[in-house]
Amino acid sequence: MNLLLLEDSDFVAADRAIVRDRRLVHLHEVHQAQSGDSLRVGRIDGLMGQARLLRLEAAEAELQVRLDQPPPAKLPLTLLLALPRPKMLKRILQTVASMGVPRLVLLNSYRVEKSFWQTPFLHPAEIREQLILGLEQARDTQLPEVIIEKRFKPFVEDRLPQLASGSLGLVAHPGDHGACPRALAQPVTLAIGPEGGWIPYEVDKLAEAGLAPVQLGERILRVETAVTALLARLF
Amino acid sequence: MNLLLLEDSDFVAADRAIVRDRRLVHLHEVHQAQSGDSLRVGRIDGLMGQARLLRLEAAEAELQVRLDQPPPAKLPLTLLLALPRPKMLKRILQTVASMGVPRLVLLNSYRVEKSFWQTPFLHPAEIREQLILGLEQARDTQLPEVIIEKRFKPFVEDRLPQLASGSLGLVAHPGDHGACPRALAQPVTLAIGPEGGWIPYEVDKLAEAGLAPVQLGERILRVETAVTALLARLF
Repeated sequence: MNLLLLEDSDFVAADRAIVRDRRLVHLHEVHQAQSGDSLRVGRIDGLMGQARLLRLEAAEAELQVRLDQPPPAKLPLTLLLALPRPKMLKRILQTVASMGVPRLVLLNSYRVEKSFWQTPFLHPAEIREQLILGLEQARDTQLPEVIIEKRFKPFVEDRLPQLASGSLGLVAHPGDHGACPRALAQPVTLAIGPEGGWIPYEVDKLAEAGLAPVQLGERILRVETAVTALLARLF
Repeated sequence: MNLLLLEDSDFVAADRAIVRDRRLVHLHEVHQAQSGDSLRVGRIDGLMGQARLLRLEAAEAELQVRLDQPPPAKLPLTLLLALPRPKMLKRILQTVASMGVPRLVLLNSYRVEKSFWQTPFLHPAEIREQLILGLEQARDTQLPEVIIEKRFKPFVEDRLPQLASGSLGLVAHPGDHGACPRALAQPVTLAIGPEGGWIPYEVDKLAEAGLAPVQLGERILRVETAVTALLARLF
């Protein structure tokens, strides 16, 4: 937790907040904080700044808060991701938030196991929790938007062309086509497939929506590693 | 397992191998393989190619093997990594192997918790197991070299200058210095710190050994994410 993120409901006055839950435990056990300490804080979807710990007790902590810095810029990216297996989904949500992705679409694909859609980790509160862990790690306050699309074809035919409009559209896909471009400044829509990859039909449909295949080399990376590697190369 | 990796001891003839253990379970349960199937295989530290499944039984599988392709090229990199926490170490070993790092030095640092050095995951057989999982993922056969250095100062003063000689030396460190370079073709020695980062003394000592600090932006990434992001940007 490199940034203590405050919810609107934590505020008891414009410059005062009360913290309980997981964050209080963290202050006690990891930070080993004491009254009077200064901490980095941010308000979810708001500014970042400093807080002074007015009191730290077993049941709650009270903070005097000054928020005066903007959060870091997001990447100019919409990321489409074939729904990963639940354990990986949790980590990827953290990674996506920590790397500054502003919008994530979790998408069905032929090679996504149907059971993955049953995971409790797709509940909005569970998604939000993982995103917040990623924001705390990276020192950001802005929650990414997460869109869930259980049907590939209607999404790619009807919604994707508009979503990708005005951006460079890319599909990460191994094969004999161009290398993933580097150091872009323009907006990008990037689609990353499931373990085992997109099937040819899906690559064709994504191409019809304006997304061109690019590859990262002959090594096959885990989805989680591929997400990070592609973002680090693109921006 | 995108590549079935064979040990020397699996071979019963120049072109025949018998597989048991975890790989046999994988053939049965994940691949749902059958006699006559063709599989991608590789020999550890050797060539890659195809195998035909001569028989697949509950206790063992017999393969006819033809190895005729070189494994993918490694990155021109020596990676120094402050020893991560055990759970992360396992994943990082897989990631490092899958991304093609040929040499990894696990190094002490002021902010490495002493208990991390007690983990059973540092035993050579455990390290090898994680590396093999990474090679199987990426389709590579060449095991990275892993060097364990429990003492920062003697390593950085006495061994590092020679290890880094002829390469571009870099230390990943947040702060007001140059951005991590991109798309290098030359050899690199890259040092990545622990959670919480290197202390200034360590950055100074690494600089004396020829490693210059570079940064990845204002977001603070988990070590695992930082490793992937830095490698994807450098090469």
